Amino acid sequence: MSNISSAKPVVQPAITTGVTREPLSGSRKIYVTNESGAFKVPMREIELTPTLLSGEGDTAKYEQNPPVRVYDTSGPYTDPTIEIDLNKGLPRFRQEWIEARGDTVQLDNFTSSFTRERIADELDIEPFANKPKPRVAMPGKNVTQMHYARQGIITPEMEYVAIRENLGRASIPQDQMPEVETGFGIDGKQKMPREITAEFVRREIAEGRAIIPASINHPELEPMIIGRNFLVKINSNIGNSALGSSIDEEVEKMVWSTRWGGDTVMDLSTGKNIHETREWIIRNSPVPIGTVPIYQALEKVNGIAEDLSWELFRDTLIEQAEQGVSYFTIHAGVLLEYIPLTANRVTGIVSRGGSIMAKWCLAHHKENFLYTHFEDICKIMKAYDVSFSLGDGLRPGSIADANDEAQFGELRTLGELTQIAWKHDVQVMIEGPGHVPMHKIKVNMEEQLKHCHEAPFYTLGPLVTDIAPGYDHITSGIGAAQIGWYGTAMLCYVTPKEHLGLPDRDDVKTGIVTYKIAAHAADLAKGHPSAQLRDDAMSKARFEFRWEDQFNLGLDPDTARAYHDATLPKESAKVAHFCSMCGPKFCSMKITQEVRDQYGDGSEYAKQKDIEAAMEEKAIEFVKQGSEIYKPDYNKV
Amino acid sequence: MSNISSAKPVVQPAITTGVTREPLSGSRKIYVTNESGAFKVPMREIELTPTLLSGEGDTAKYEQNPPVRVYDTSGPYTDPTIEIDLNKGLPRFRQEWIEARGDTVQLDNFTSSFTRERIADELDIEPFANKPKPRVAMPGKNVTQMHYARQGIITPEMEYVAIRENLGRASIPQDQMPEVETGFGIDGKQKMPREITAEFVRREIAEGRAIIPASINHPELEPMIIGRNFLVKINSNIGNSALGSSIDEEVEKMVWSTRWGGDTVMDLSTGKNIHETREWIIRNSPVPIGTVPIYQALEKVNGIAEDLSWELFRDTLIEQAEQGVSYFTIHAGVLLEYIPLTANRVTGIVSRGGSIMAKWCLAHHKENFLYTHFEDICKIMKAYDVSFSLGDGLRPGSIADANDEAQFGELRTLGELTQIAWKHDVQVMIEGPGHVPMHKIKVNMEEQLKHCHEAPFYTLGPLVTDIAPGYDHITSGIGAAQIGWYGTAMLCYVTPKEHLGLPDRDDVKTGIVTYKIAAHAADLAKGHPSAQLRDDAMSKARFEFRWEDQFNLGLDPDTARAYHDATLPKESAKVAHFCSMCGPKFCSMKITQEVRDQYGDGSEYAKQKDIEAAMEEKAIEFVKQGSEIYKPDYNKV
Repeated sequence: MSNISSAKPVVQPAITTGVTREPLSGSRKIYVTNESGAFKVPMREIELTPTLLSGEGDTAKYEQNPPVRVYDTSGPYTDPTIEIDLNKGLPRFRQEWIEARGDTVQLDNFTSSFTRERIADELDIEPFANKPKPRVAMPGKNVTQMHYARQGIITPEMEYVAIRENLGRASIPQDQMPEVETGFGIDGKQKMPREITAEFVRREIAEGRAIIPASINHPELEPMIIGRNFLVKINSNIGNSALGSSIDEEVEKMVWSTRWGGDTVMDLSTGKNIHETREWIIRNSPVPIGTVPIYQALEKVNGIAEDLSWELFRDTLIEQAEQGVSYFTIHAGVLLEYIPLTANRVTGIVSRGGSIMAKWCLAHHKENFLYTHFEDICKIMKAYDVSFSLGDGLRPGSIADANDEAQFGELRTLGELTQIAWKHDVQVMIEGPGHVPMHKIKVNMEEQLKHCHEAPFYTLGPLVTDIAPGYDHITSGIGAAQIGWYGTAMLCYVTPKEHLGLPDRDDVKTGIVTYKIAAHAADLAKGHPSAQLRDDAMSKARFEFRWEDQFNLGLDPDTARAYHDATLPKESAKVAHFCSMCGPKFCSMKITQEVRDQYGDGSEYAKQKDIEAAMEEKAIEFVKQGSEIYKPDYNKV
Repeated sequence: MSNISSAKPVVQPAITTGVTREPLSGSRKIYVTNESGAFKVPMREIELTPTLLSGEGDTAKYEQNPPVRVYDTSGPYTDPTIEIDLNKGLPRFRQEWIEARGDTVQLDNFTSSFTRERIADELDIEPFANKPKPRVAMPGKNVTQMHYARQGIITPEMEYVAIRENLGRASIPQDQMPEVETGFGIDGKQKMPREITAEFVRREIAEGRAIIPASINHPELEPMIIGRNFLVKINSNIGNSALGSSIDEEVEKMVWSTRWGGDTVMDLSTGKNIHETREWIIRNSPVPIGTVPIYQALEKVNGIAEDLSWELFRDTLIEQAEQGVSYFTIHAGVLLEYIPLTANRVTGIVSRGGSIMAKWCLAHHKENFLYTHFEDICKIMKAYDVSFSLGDGLRPGSIADANDEAQFGELRTLGELTQIAWKHDVQVMIEGPGHVPMHKIKVNMEEQLKHCHEAPFYTLGPLVTDIAPGYDHITSGIGAAQIGWYGTAMLCYVTPKEHLGLPDRDDVKTGIVTYKIAAHAADLAKGHPSAQLRDDAMSKARFEFRWEDQFNLGLDPDTARAYHDATLPKESAKVAHFCSMCGPKFCSMKITQEVRDQYGDGSEYAKQKDIEAAMEEKAIEFVKQGSEIYKPDYNKV
């Protein structure tokens, strides 16, 4: 079916670009080629050391431990054989797929007047010198993945994500799959599919339950899917602001985010050089980029919300669509009638986009122009295949405000808008939560599935308490894991600096790892067929004291290794057959091994009815063997 | 009813003792005196700054924000008026309560032969020089809180915890209590009581649903209660080991743990000087101390599990009971018949106590002596009021092993043992979880309630995935929050070093704060009547840009302040009316304020049917007012 090739290191070191390049510890990039040989899907393989079964030196017997294949969002940056030049951007490998469909045209110039002005002003300055010409749908054509799916067409993007989602599971016999014991979804009975086929992907997209955010102007991206019948995804936010950061830093933030597992990146820049920052990020990003276009629109009117207009906003949408943004957060559900419902909240409106639109509505005493022009927006979206992320402008900003009428009123409006978007075959996901105590989380998912017709849910956290500033990655990770289990398709990360300041590099990593934990915990709880393979490999390595394998199988090998070394810094301790928590005498894992030595796998023993007699017999054997408690080496036989 | 007095700072600085003394940022210790005036219950009050309503300087109008009262586990260390001398230990204030009951006797010497030997060897060395003489029940007397409760007696300890658990809630009118919307407990319908009375405490203890772990030999402790109708508690583990740490460090670890919210501390020392470490900790601890006596017993036989005997273990129990340990983890449910059930697990037996007992059972082909001597143990427990923490020696150590027959078999045995202990009026809690994926957590709580007759559940995590070494405070905090919500009474913390190494000071704090989050999230989700008061105060401070109040209301003011200062270090930024994430122009909180300025609390507006007309009117007003978007000051009127 699929062929796997491995990246061979080149003799010459790759060009250093100022961004992080080395592969994750113990990992190598592999590529799975599709059936026709037309393209290859990158994955990461964690190589494991063998288990010593018996003996030592020349007489040692080993059991091989197969490598563990994991989903890889890091793109070419972790493949040392690929040269990276940030000025050129990543290879535009999806270009030929797009061209082959014959429904788009490359323009000679940009449609957005803002873009044209910037180019005229700054043509000789990066990133404009290498800026690719924009592509757009031919008149009358619809170029969304949903449109193709509804025509019955399986695109290369769909085939790509099917291979990517399957990871190792297609190769696992059904009877060796971990038992699935849970359901989720609208009726609490949904099961994860055993194997993902391209046809299954197509159907999920056609029916609106999943999206592939993949702008035709971001051919550099590696397609990924967001839907509750797939792996739970996470988003990380980056962006400069009026108060700090530079373009170079933003590109490295994207690379850094995808290195640790960010499935998409939202560029939430609000300061200067928004267009340029975004250009650099998109040209170098292996993951879809999302934005909140109203932020840039507001910059264009010098921060005066009243001065926003549909025309200006429309030009901004086109500007960003022509750069290659794959999903737009659009706060079209902030209706006039909902705004007074926020007045007696403890924390009012906390969404920036929501409050901008509320401000505009108040000043003009008109309905939100994003709502009144929603069909116009759909027409832009389908010309570039930009997906909607329908913004939750009225999400609760505190436990006190959770699940109120403002929030749920907006949610129902997002459901109406979903059906309008779908009429245009535009892909949609729905934004949700914020601050919600645990007992009020589930109803959020139920209401969303019901009112938004099973469009994918994309939530911030939720934070399950307000009392821990500095730890809101954790307060929100608790809620994110739960809502992911209930069926949320993508989780928007929160860093430790939430509510306090701008995240630095370490904060971004901490936020992402926390959200990978939440997403993976949700995959396990949903009964994702292959999710537990990595846990099981970790647990086996733990039981067998294969320390390096434990580090490398983890979400953050570097931190795990550093923590281990803080107690037992010597290299020899990494092959020590005890852990530092218990010390050499007290290791319970070693005692367990002795139980296993006595009973084999326990199954035969369990059949015996006369437990006592059997115990006596075994105990005598045990004493005869010398009652050796703390064997200096780990022995399996 | 109760009188509140505040600790006044003394002129002379308190004696420095080498342990952390300063109050938490923005907090002061207060004392609530009981009705009879016989004793006072310490609490912490977080003082808040006023809200500026209008004007500035002399014409400014302010709204006062009442201080927020929180549960305080830190003992006298955070009261600067109290002198601390580690060599003398804390005041033995509970001594007179115990003596007044007239059912105990103070011995001239220790009963434990081990203790006598140590004293003979080391009498002139601390801590033996000041070691208090042990107290024990008079012959035929039972001195447990459960025994008193069942006699209908309300002890000072019960009255103390009732005052402590109520915090501010007794003073809040019912109609101002946050709405309770959830149930939990055995039928999913249990509601938190609106107010805790001493009689309610008595009944909960009499019926076995709660315990007050309070050894008669630890009169220094401030009584606390563990049960699912009370605030969710957390435990932190400390302890030296063969590989590191000293006695001084251990005492400071206890002080550090209680500073951040540890409700009990387990001393899990396994190395040298176990007895001395414990003596120092207990004499200086304001919280109950738990231990796993089998660890020390094993030390006494040089780590050879086969050499353990009932006689040696019995002497260890008495040794520790005479020092003042308040609860013992006893792995009496690790039965011979369950041991083979662990043989085919991925990670076998991971509990140290469980594996020690399994080892002993295997070697002797006899039933676990903790099980066969269980009634003998009960007789010791009731002579000192030591509570059982029935150990989960067969808890799962990996996702793969969760909820297996070994685990649930042991749980049912713990239920049988609970009834035996209750026959002796000995207080019991049940240990549980470990590694459990989210969808398998709830059944743990249900099985525990069913088989263990509603005795309080005390769980480690559970960790909801195995793949994040270095972040297991988070993987377990996710599970802990959930199982706490379902009804677990106490959560045993996990630090970031779990599975990797020994936690340092920062790790202990991180673990505790993470678990305070989980416990508080559970209190919110259970509908604890006063839990949300702190969240609401935080959210109001957040909305009003009262930065110092936000820091001080948090679980860790120091970290919150440091994170804020990392972005906006200037002192003036702490009164800035915007947050660093959005910058000065984009603040959604400010826009919300304008909505409020327009609509008041929204209630009147919501009544109006003609939304559009009202909007128009309001919008005209708004424009007339000058459409001022970003007011330099926060104005409420």
